[in-house]
Amino acid sequence: MNQLDETIAGLKFSADGLIPAVCVDCETKQVLMVAYMNAESLKDTVKTQKTHFWSRSRQKYWMKGESSGHTQEVKAIYTDCDKDTLIVEVKQNGAACHEGYFSCFYRKLNDDGGWDIVAEKLFNPDDVYKK
Amino acid sequence: MNQLDETIAGLKFSADGLIPAVCVDCETKQVLMVAYMNAESLKDTVKTQKTHFWSRSRQKYWMKGESSGHTQEVKAIYTDCDKDTLIVEVKQNGAACHEGYFSCFYRKLNDDGGWDIVAEKLFNPDDVYKK
Repeated sequence: MNQLDETIAGLKFSADGLIPAVCVDCETKQVLMVAYMNAESLKDTVKTQKTHFWSRSRQKYWMKGESSGHTQEVKAIYTDCDKDTLIVEVKQNGAACHEGYFSCFYRKLNDDGGWDIVAEKLFNPDDVYKK
Repeated sequence: MNQLDETIAGLKFSADGLIPAVCVDCETKQVLMVAYMNAESLKDTVKTQKTHFWSRSRQKYWMKGESSGHTQEVKAIYTDCDKDTLIVEVKQNGAACHEGYFSCFYRKLNDDGGWDIVAEKLFNPDDVYKK
């Protein structure tokens, strides 16, 4: 077992073998998205320097940008004190959110207790994700 | 049901009633910690403007800083496209990590596949968390 395999084995994955990965912009540190990795997708993320995940809703292995072209180039990976969460610093090509926003976190809680949309769409999802 | 209750009810909590909250520094946007909220702790977080969580390991409701004094003052709350994750922008008093680091994410993956410690301890946990 090489050191990377050992490092990955030392992480605390959930019962279903996943660990949350917080993807942040390498320049501004803005959080772009949170998705889940299994051991295989983390290893591929390190090896290819492109983010790979496991989709819980689609039960499917995927590379970010495989359909949209909006890949993420990995610049650094961090873990926390409990080794149960990752931060992945990336250069985001295009936009992170499948709805067309640069970050998935485009809704801010307002003083009335509702959500305000606080970002602009960079693209129209219908143009990028061909049906 | 008021608007905040409705907003909270509209979030996608996991089967065990939790949603991950990524706490970031309101100035630098640095990720400080990731912890889990249930509906009650999110409501208290909004109402008191101090972060509250549900601890999965201790199966216990807690306010960040209740033992250390290192509270987090809430400045803004965001959610993502899927409404299954929160970002909480905070002013961190003291340090976020119970091990004494400002951020829990003090370990960076190096080129050999191991972890490097890339931050300085701000306090000695033994002095802060009395046994």
